[in-house]
Amino acid sequence: MTTPQTPSAPQPATVPVVRLLPKANARAIRHGFPWVYANELVTDRRTRGLAPGTLARLEDENRTPMGLVAVNPNSKIIARMLDQDPEAEITQAWFETRIARALALRSQLYDQPYYRLIHAEADGLPGVIIDRFGDTCVIQPNAAWADAMLETLVAALQSVTGVVNVQKNASGRTRKLEGLDDTSATVAGTTPEGPLPVPMNGATYMADLTGGQKTGLFYDQRPNHAFAANLARNGARVLDVFAHVGGFSLAALANDASSALAVDGSAPALELAEAGAAAMGMQDRFATRQGDAFDVLTALRDEGETFDVVICDPPAFAPSRQAVEAGLRAYERVARLSAQLVAENGILGLCSCSHAADLNQFRTASVRGIGRAGRRAMLLHTGFAGADHPQLPQLAESGYLKSLFFRL
Amino acid sequence: MTTPQTPSAPQPATVPVVRLLPKANARAIRHGFPWVYANELVTDRRTRGLAPGTLARLEDENRTPMGLVAVNPNSKIIARMLDQDPEAEITQAWFETRIARALALRSQLYDQPYYRLIHAEADGLPGVIIDRFGDTCVIQPNAAWADAMLETLVAALQSVTGVVNVQKNASGRTRKLEGLDDTSATVAGTTPEGPLPVPMNGATYMADLTGGQKTGLFYDQRPNHAFAANLARNGARVLDVFAHVGGFSLAALANDASSALAVDGSAPALELAEAGAAAMGMQDRFATRQGDAFDVLTALRDEGETFDVVICDPPAFAPSRQAVEAGLRAYERVARLSAQLVAENGILGLCSCSHAADLNQFRTASVRGIGRAGRRAMLLHTGFAGADHPQLPQLAESGYLKSLFFRL
Repeated sequence: MTTPQTPSAPQPATVPVVRLLPKANARAIRHGFPWVYANELVTDRRTRGLAPGTLARLEDENRTPMGLVAVNPNSKIIARMLDQDPEAEITQAWFETRIARALALRSQLYDQPYYRLIHAEADGLPGVIIDRFGDTCVIQPNAAWADAMLETLVAALQSVTGVVNVQKNASGRTRKLEGLDDTSATVAGTTPEGPLPVPMNGATYMADLTGGQKTGLFYDQRPNHAFAANLARNGARVLDVFAHVGGFSLAALANDASSALAVDGSAPALELAEAGAAAMGMQDRFATRQGDAFDVLTALRDEGETFDVVICDPPAFAPSRQAVEAGLRAYERVARLSAQLVAENGILGLCSCSHAADLNQFRTASVRGIGRAGRRAMLLHTGFAGADHPQLPQLAESGYLKSLFFRL
Repeated sequence: MTTPQTPSAPQPATVPVVRLLPKANARAIRHGFPWVYANELVTDRRTRGLAPGTLARLEDENRTPMGLVAVNPNSKIIARMLDQDPEAEITQAWFETRIARALALRSQLYDQPYYRLIHAEADGLPGVIIDRFGDTCVIQPNAAWADAMLETLVAALQSVTGVVNVQKNASGRTRKLEGLDDTSATVAGTTPEGPLPVPMNGATYMADLTGGQKTGLFYDQRPNHAFAANLARNGARVLDVFAHVGGFSLAALANDASSALAVDGSAPALELAEAGAAAMGMQDRFATRQGDAFDVLTALRDEGETFDVVICDPPAFAPSRQAVEAGLRAYERVARLSAQLVAENGILGLCSCSHAADLNQFRTASVRGIGRAGRRAMLLHTGFAGADHPQLPQLAESGYLKSLFFRL
């Protein structure tokens, strides 16, 4: 298997070549696995010297071309497959084809242009996240190749979708792993003045596209917001913990919950939630409480409060494999404290956005916490991220978002 | 730990006592695990002599009462927990409390009285399935205790819900394991004359409550029907394989699919599907093809047909652990044959109702089949049974229904 072969197609002079080691899983890559890990690639001095984001032709150990990749010698993911055609040229038209395909799916899914338009590898643009808010998009170019080609990407985005304003958000943690800076900017059109209203599940959310977390609003929980909101109709009292801009609480109010209390550590996030409730004309049924969620949950228990629907959507407690044990204990604690606040026959929604804690681990921790609160539960529903967050099946086990809905 | 203790409450003379062996997992049972396996119970001559369905008080190895159980010495699940109160009396009022609690949840979930009302253990009635079709219910008393107490159960059901007609369906495979007969009957009101129209997701299904499979209609796929139907709007051409009474195809037509073809091995099921399409006034856009699904998929390929949305919802190919390997091969084959029929950028929905094949196994088989068809896929959505099919968290890993939606 080590006999060199003549490449089957002419090699463009401008594109360097990188080569898999024999131990690499070439078969998986041919079948669609999108990454080459650093220990799978021949990393001679020439490869180590490639600038982050350099486009290169990937060959297998026998020098058979496998596709066009973006190389980053500084990253554990040393190469990302851009196109299985080794002769592909990454032009505006190339971006347009991918964006048009992604747009067709979102147009099928949603009536209004508010969604995640590009979800990285699954949408054929490795490391690229684009969220759409009407005629404004927020791009996270979280891989070096996309950061380098941002201008072409933005031109393609505008040409396919007609969006006017494009923000670059450079706050993603993964940019650091790629050796990229954290400088956000307006890259097309104008910077939105103040928060943008975003319609979703009948509610109005206020998204701060320049000062907010990530891209200003999380679209991933949309189907889980809808599930919880359906259980909150008929006048439920709702508690939304780690509420951010009011994801679960505003959807519940839009669906005839009688009241909602949003808890978050961030005062700016809660102000946006209040602005959303006001935009819906529902500020009378909406209240906020700023503070550490664990403290507020404990205080509410001491006050003897109960709610018909309680949702906890914390930040990733288990962001890495090393943090899984501690993360699961934190999820169990959230479950225990929040279960105490659920009225008899009420609903408890518990969410995890930790890659490292899988569904079974998260469910076990949640059920244990509910049990420690002295409550019994039935499991009504297990939800994941919405369909505008597609996954490559090859990466599906790492699906990060899990939402469990219990009746207590 | 072997010192006998005095029972903490008086023991009704009429209720026999059964006792856990030291090796039994008493802690799990105290925390809500609902079953005692035959090898966990002291099975002396007296216990072996109990009639199937006998109510008994369960004690741990130290003679501490743990609850009221239904015993069936013929079953691998030798005892099912009915009530953790050892003094509970299983009266009409006891049934009414449980049914009312289950009804409250379904009334929250759905606007119309068409749903699974009782989903066995999770709804506090071990082995009992009740599906509601307006003023008619179909009961599957799949455990001996429930079969023995059917009259009281039906009285409670009528009193809580006001339903008039109650059918007993005795065709469940699990009845045999419990040593029960397979004689179905009308146990209250009248036998429905002809199929009943059932509204769900905007479609009308025809349910044959006396001659059909199980309880005449499967409510469990409701959220997955809705997901697929949303992707079929804008005039999609839909192929519904293993269609039964048209679950996916009629929901798609109700949501503006341009055409739907339903394939099933059962001519009576397809007649019901046609009757449903006619009731919706959509018979012009609906066609059926009776035959072996594998044969029809192959024939459609040979005819060069493609569809925008293809759904395959086969019977359980892996009904037992022994059958998992063969079952996964069958799922892979379904995926391969059906992927060939999906138009570019079309949707493929693949479902499994096999307990024994878990989500990861089923997804892997499906992705392999799609790959063998020469297609690439992104995973859009993973769905389970609807919330009227709740689970005990302790049994959640065995969640049987999985639906995967891919875009090809």
